[in-house]
Amino acid sequence: MLKKIHHVGVVVPDLEAGLKFWRDTLGLHFTKSATIAEQGVKAALLKVGESEIELLEPLDRNNGVGKFLAKRGGGLHHVCFETEDVAHELEAARSKGIQLIDQKPRHGLAGMICFLHPKATHGVLVEYAQPLDGE
Amino acid sequence: MLKKIHHVGVVVPDLEAGLKFWRDTLGLHFTKSATIAEQGVKAALLKVGESEIELLEPLDRNNGVGKFLAKRGGGLHHVCFETEDVAHELEAARSKGIQLIDQKPRHGLAGMICFLHPKATHGVLVEYAQPLDGE
Repeated sequence: MLKKIHHVGVVVPDLEAGLKFWRDTLGLHFTKSATIAEQGVKAALLKVGESEIELLEPLDRNNGVGKFLAKRGGGLHHVCFETEDVAHELEAARSKGIQLIDQKPRHGLAGMICFLHPKATHGVLVEYAQPLDGE
Repeated sequence: MLKKIHHVGVVVPDLEAGLKFWRDTLGLHFTKSATIAEQGVKAALLKVGESEIELLEPLDRNNGVGKFLAKRGGGLHHVCFETEDVAHELEAARSKGIQLIDQKPRHGLAGMICFLHPKATHGVLVEYAQPLDGE
């Protein structure tokens, strides 16, 4: 079962400029930022209600986020739903014939995560996340 | 102050096919659908936590949603934040020099609403909504 929107991922050309808008202008509550070398992104999280906006700046123009930025100049990138059991949700999606990006859960900024394939969803990149303790 | 993500707007080529994925496959809770002639869309709302996914099928290929569908084939369209006072938020955005689509709040599916201009936000279409009683 999907419990809530965990976060909405937004690709930005520059994380500091992104924070100026989402934190300083819109007034969302900045919670943390991190460089995630293995995913090739700098990320920042901003809280709003029970959800977050996740800003993503690519560190590599050839990864998925980098290609998205080059093609579209930034914008809404993915929506992530929280679940208590990401492995179960992934298996349920697979059993329903949904195309997957990740064949098994992996560690991400939001805990244990996986991505469905946007081909399965009319162009929406959907992520499932199971937060880990302390994250 | 922005309280929560009210909904994430998703453009789909066909509302029934969209519901098959978001409701039947992902298991989100369908709450209502409506044809909004003046906005040229058919819409469906699906609840997840305190937020909703709003599916939008254009009725006119020349409106904003229709052009989005033609250009991208569907996908994440906008993010809407709930506020207790949409007029105040709109005025605050204007005073900060943010480009606006709506110069004053208008009635929409989510109550009284307004849209900021995506040029102000690095390509993200942001909506503010103040739900009305009974909506």
